[in-house]
Amino acid sequence: MNRTENSPLARKLAAFVALSPDEFAALKQLHQRRRTFVAGRDMVHQGQSDQAAYILESGWVCSYKIMSDGARQIVDFQIPGDFLGLRSVLLQTSDHSIEPITDIQAVEVLVDDLLGAFAQTPRLAAAILWAASRDEAMVVEHLVGVGRRDANARMAHFLLELGARLALVGMGGKEGYACPLTQYHLADALGLSAVHVNRVLRQLREDGLVTFRDGQVTIHDYDRLVTLAEFDPAYLDQTGPILK
Amino acid sequence: MNRTENSPLARKLAAFVALSPDEFAALKQLHQRRRTFVAGRDMVHQGQSDQAAYILESGWVCSYKIMSDGARQIVDFQIPGDFLGLRSVLLQTSDHSIEPITDIQAVEVLVDDLLGAFAQTPRLAAAILWAASRDEAMVVEHLVGVGRRDANARMAHFLLELGARLALVGMGGKEGYACPLTQYHLADALGLSAVHVNRVLRQLREDGLVTFRDGQVTIHDYDRLVTLAEFDPAYLDQTGPILK
Repeated sequence: MNRTENSPLARKLAAFVALSPDEFAALKQLHQRRRTFVAGRDMVHQGQSDQAAYILESGWVCSYKIMSDGARQIVDFQIPGDFLGLRSVLLQTSDHSIEPITDIQAVEVLVDDLLGAFAQTPRLAAAILWAASRDEAMVVEHLVGVGRRDANARMAHFLLELGARLALVGMGGKEGYACPLTQYHLADALGLSAVHVNRVLRQLREDGLVTFRDGQVTIHDYDRLVTLAEFDPAYLDQTGPILK
Repeated sequence: MNRTENSPLARKLAAFVALSPDEFAALKQLHQRRRTFVAGRDMVHQGQSDQAAYILESGWVCSYKIMSDGARQIVDFQIPGDFLGLRSVLLQTSDHSIEPITDIQAVEVLVDDLLGAFAQTPRLAAAILWAASRDEAMVVEHLVGVGRRDANARMAHFLLELGARLALVGMGGKEGYACPLTQYHLADALGLSAVHVNRVLRQLREDGLVTFRDGQVTIHDYDRLVTLAEFDPAYLDQTGPILK
């Protein structure tokens, strides 16, 4: 397999569609412009026009919105294989900011690249629409979490979702995963204060469910954590390709 | 113009792409199976497999999730021109339920119909990905609202967003619009109690901003309402086609 076939995005799309050699070639065409971005410096600003989308190859990123009072709502985190700003490349201005949490490598994708790939293979278009649908399903879960889950269930759901996403691209499993997020990231994603995040994590640890410490999430009791979170991973749609 | 060119979906997609006659023909191909659904009976259940997507032609719909304790989070409302369950048709099971709020007319769309349309015209694929991106941007705004806006700003933002969406398909303007939603719908969408919704609406009315009464939203002072909500409609991307 060449590098593209082994890329995190190819691994992820394989959960939806068994890509043919032609479709891999179209996907490879999207991987022309590799770029590096450093941690902590916005790649895209809320309100920016004419921005590109990116396919994240390595590292972690967060997408967020800032309110006029300075409050931040993190919409989601992106891991390898995820699109950055796919939503925004089709909208005329970006509705959110994108900031690398670690140094990252990403491939730049322009609207014309996407149209070109869609023209070559409609199944790749469907696969990218699938990936966008999956991203939206995650935002929906975050809305449900902030709107309707208590803090412990919200945190448990979040950590399980991240684990399932990382597992799909070979970066984690039911035992846990490496995770560069700080308690401030968790707070801004989950709508909690950093102090509250600290308390919730201590509670989950003392209950023997999960420990998040020193950049490592260690899951002690996967089944009980799933029960607490009422985590049903169906929305992540990782059980195998629909399109053969 | 034939019926398809004049359909709410065609009007909406025109904000993104100037569709050619061939692209209208492909869009028309999607409009084969018109169906009617009655108010109050779920069209799609959370967890259901093999469901179709629909293009809403007339009436109002809500998409929601039910928690195990019975609490409901409404993710979004759909109006004419919107897809219903587009996300779910690509995922193997639906992550949410879909319920008509009024009697509706909708066109059924299967995955194969979508792939067929994408094969005929990649620009239509891009337009549908645009519509999905716009839907996601709305869910992001709802997440930000529930996470970071106070109740008055949240309600004001919600009513302005609905107005802008309805204006795009010719069903409203800056003066207001007809709206069949109840205070229970607003409560479940905004993460408020029905009593709180009532109080917020009274406050907005007494402040001379907006009145929602007897199925009609009347906007008294659009500019002050925008200021209160910090409403920036850029994420709705309605200013004209990107693709000529």
